[in-house]
Amino acid sequence: MSIIVQKYGGSSVQDAESIKRVARRIVDTKRAGHQVVVVVSAMGDTTDDLLDLAADISSAPPLREMDILLSSGERMSMALLAMAIHELGETAQSFTGSQAGMITDALHGRARIIEVSPQRVQEAVDAGYVGIVAGFQGMSRESKDITTMGRGGSDTTAVALAAALDAEVCEIYTDVDGVFTADPRVVKSARKIDEISSEDMLEMAAAGTKVLHLRSVEYARRFGVKLHVRSSFSDKEGTWVIPDETDTVTIKEGEPLEQPIISGLAHESSEGKLTIRGVPDAPGKAAAVFNPIAEAGINIDMIVQDISAETKKTNISFTLPGADGDKAQRILTEHQDEIGFESLDFVPQVGKVSLIGGGMRNHPGVSARFFSALSEAGINIELISTSEIRVSVITDVEVMDKAVQAIHTAFGLDSDEEAKVYAGTGR
Amino acid sequence: MSIIVQKYGGSSVQDAESIKRVARRIVDTKRAGHQVVVVVSAMGDTTDDLLDLAADISSAPPLREMDILLSSGERMSMALLAMAIHELGETAQSFTGSQAGMITDALHGRARIIEVSPQRVQEAVDAGYVGIVAGFQGMSRESKDITTMGRGGSDTTAVALAAALDAEVCEIYTDVDGVFTADPRVVKSARKIDEISSEDMLEMAAAGTKVLHLRSVEYARRFGVKLHVRSSFSDKEGTWVIPDETDTVTIKEGEPLEQPIISGLAHESSEGKLTIRGVPDAPGKAAAVFNPIAEAGINIDMIVQDISAETKKTNISFTLPGADGDKAQRILTEHQDEIGFESLDFVPQVGKVSLIGGGMRNHPGVSARFFSALSEAGINIELISTSEIRVSVITDVEVMDKAVQAIHTAFGLDSDEEAKVYAGTGR
Repeated sequence: MSIIVQKYGGSSVQDAESIKRVARRIVDTKRAGHQVVVVVSAMGDTTDDLLDLAADISSAPPLREMDILLSSGERMSMALLAMAIHELGETAQSFTGSQAGMITDALHGRARIIEVSPQRVQEAVDAGYVGIVAGFQGMSRESKDITTMGRGGSDTTAVALAAALDAEVCEIYTDVDGVFTADPRVVKSARKIDEISSEDMLEMAAAGTKVLHLRSVEYARRFGVKLHVRSSFSDKEGTWVIPDETDTVTIKEGEPLEQPIISGLAHESSEGKLTIRGVPDAPGKAAAVFNPIAEAGINIDMIVQDISAETKKTNISFTLPGADGDKAQRILTEHQDEIGFESLDFVPQVGKVSLIGGGMRNHPGVSARFFSALSEAGINIELISTSEIRVSVITDVEVMDKAVQAIHTAFGLDSDEEAKVYAGTGR
Repeated sequence: MSIIVQKYGGSSVQDAESIKRVARRIVDTKRAGHQVVVVVSAMGDTTDDLLDLAADISSAPPLREMDILLSSGERMSMALLAMAIHELGETAQSFTGSQAGMITDALHGRARIIEVSPQRVQEAVDAGYVGIVAGFQGMSRESKDITTMGRGGSDTTAVALAAALDAEVCEIYTDVDGVFTADPRVVKSARKIDEISSEDMLEMAAAGTKVLHLRSVEYARRFGVKLHVRSSFSDKEGTWVIPDETDTVTIKEGEPLEQPIISGLAHESSEGKLTIRGVPDAPGKAAAVFNPIAEAGINIDMIVQDISAETKKTNISFTLPGADGDKAQRILTEHQDEIGFESLDFVPQVGKVSLIGGGMRNHPGVSARFFSALSEAGINIELISTSEIRVSVITDVEVMDKAVQAIHTAFGLDSDEEAKVYAGTGR
C-alpha cells in the first residue's frame, strides 16, 4: 500500500467546519486504498494571535520560549483533526514534530531539518491509523528543545516526511487551484499549469511565485519527491511538480511529453535598486563595493555595470531587498573614500518580472521575443539577468503588472477562460 | 539557597496584564533570595474553550488526542510567563510536564503521577533561571504520550515538584485570601485560618472545602510538603497547611502552639440519599445490598441502619454521588428478590455539614455541642457519621446553610469582621 502525504495550511483548518471537511477528504483518501500521513498547520490566524499576545508582554521575547508558544498552535489543530477523523469512523494518531522524528539544528525560529526519523509515524500507518504530524516544528538535537522552522516550515515538514517515508506523492492543499502561468490576480487569462519540473518550479518560487515556498521545492527537488499542489475546496487536479530525472516529464500511461518551452511567469516587488555613480574604472573597485555589503549580510540579486569610455568611470547598479536599502547606503557612504564614487541613488521599490522554462535551453529566440514584447508595450528595461532557464528584468514598479500581461500574451500563455481567483493569496 | 514552588491558577494568568503581575511577584521572590519554580495553569478559560472546540467536532474524542489538545493551554501560558519574566530583567526557562520529569501512568484524562525526576528544572534554577513548569500534564512511562491529570492536576504538579525538589514551601496562589473556617459566601463571619494541619485540611477537602484539591493535600501530607494557600491579589499571609509530625504545629521562633480544637467547617450538596425500606433482618442482607452497588463502581459515603424490634425489618439509608442515584436504584431493583426489601426511596440532593479538628480527639463534648447547636436551630439530622477528627451530618439541603452558620457560631468561630468575599470561587 502506498503512502500519500497531505499538507493542509491554516486557512484549510480555520474552524470546526473546515476541520471536518479536511477530515472527510483524508478519510476518502484512506478508503481509496492508501496509507495517509497528514501535516497540518495551526488553525487560521492562531500563529498571528500568539505573536500578538507575545508582543503585548515582551519587546524581545527569548526565542526558545517563542518556539514553545508558537508550536502549541499546531498541537491544537492536529489533535482536533484526529478527533474529526475518529468521528468519521477511522482511527488517527497525532504526533508532535519531536515525536515524528523531525530533528533540527538549534536555531530557534528558523530551524533547519538535520534528520527525519519517522518510525512512530510509519508504525501508526502500518497499524491502520492515519498519522497526523504537527507542521512547522521539530526538536533540536543539541538541546532537546522544541524548535520552529520559519516561513515555509509546514510545507517543508510535509516534503521531508514524504521523502523519509518514500511516499508516492506529497499533496499540498491550498486555497487556489494550483500553480498558474502567472499570478491570476494580475493576468486574468493565466492558465493553471498541469505539470512543471522541479527545476522550473524552483525558479518560479525564487522569482516571486508564492504558492509554494522555495525551501520546500528545493527539498522536493533534492530528494526526488513528487508534489501535487491543489485546492482544498474541490476535487480538481492541481499542478504536478515532478522531480527532474530526464528532460521529459512522463504522465498518463507512459506517454512522454516534451517539456513545454515556457512554464510561466513570476513577478515580485520586494526589491529596491541601488546605483553607485562614477566609480573609477580600476581593478578592485567592484570588490570594494561588494565585500562590505556581503559582510553586512545583505543579499544582492541582479547586478549591472556600465562603463563610459570617455570618463573611464562606471555606474554599478544592483538590486537588493528593499528593507536593506538604508543599511546598504550607509555602508557604502562609510567606504566612499576607498571606493571613490561620486554619488548614490536608491529606488526603494522596483518590479522584477521573470520568464521561466527548462525548454529555453534548446530554443534560441526566447530572450528576443521577451524583450520585443516589453518594447512593444512601451516598458523600459532597467536591468537584465538571465540563466539557462530564466530571463528576468527589472522595471519601474508602476508598470510591472503591464509587463507581466504583455509577456504572457506574447508567449501564447493566455487561456480562453478567465482564471478563477479565490479570496485566498495562494497560501 | 532555598527553593520556593509557586502555583498560579487560570484566573491568575487570564490575560497579558495578569501574566505581567504574576511575573512581578515571581521576580520579587527571586530577588528576595530564593530559587523559584513556578507551576502554571492554562490562561483563564482556555481549557473550557478547548473542550468546547472538541465537542463541536466529536461526540466521543479519543482520550489520547484530548490530552494533546488540552495540554497546549499550559504550554502557551508557561512560555508567555517566561517572556514576561525576561522583560523584567530576570531569566526563565519553561518546561513541559514531560521535560520536567512528571512521569505518569497511561490513564489519559486522569493520569496519576508515578515518578518525579525534575533534573532539568533543578539545573535551570541552579544556573539562575526561574524554572516554569506546565501544570496538569505529564508523560506516560508506557507509551511516551502526553497525559493530563484531571481535577486538581496543577495543584498536584506543584506539590509533587515541591516534594521532589525538597522545597521550603509550596505556595498555592488563588483568588481568595486562604482557607476559611467556613465558606465565606455562606458564613459572613467566617475567619481566615492562619494555620491548619495537613490531616485536618485533608478532612476539610474531603468534606467539601473547595480551595485546595483533596488530591494535592493528600500528596502534601504523604510527602511532608508545607503548603501556603494565599491570594494572588495581595501580599497578605494566607493559610499555612503544615504536615503533621507531632500533635503540635510549630511556627515563629520555635514557639509551639497547641492545635486549636476545631479547624473549621466544610459543607457540600453533591450527594443524594437512598433509603431501602423493609429489609429482612437476616445475615447477609447488608452484603446483598452493598456488593452489587460496589461492583458497579458507585462510591458510598455515609450509612445508617435502623432496626424495628417489632417487625424484625431494617431500613438501610446511605449517601452517594447524586449523579449515581438512578443507576443505584436500578441495580437494587434488579436484586430485589435476593435482598427482599419492600421499597426504595431516593432524595436526589441532601446537605452534608462537617466539623473538623484534630483536637477533637482529646476533647469530649464536641459532638454533643454540635448536635445541640443543630437542635437549637431547629434542624433535623438525617444521618450521622463521625471519625476521630470529624463529625458529619446529613440534613435537608434547604437548611444546609443555616446549619453551617449555627455550628460556626456555637463553636466560637465567628470573627468580628465580615469575611471579604471576592468574585472568585476559591479556585
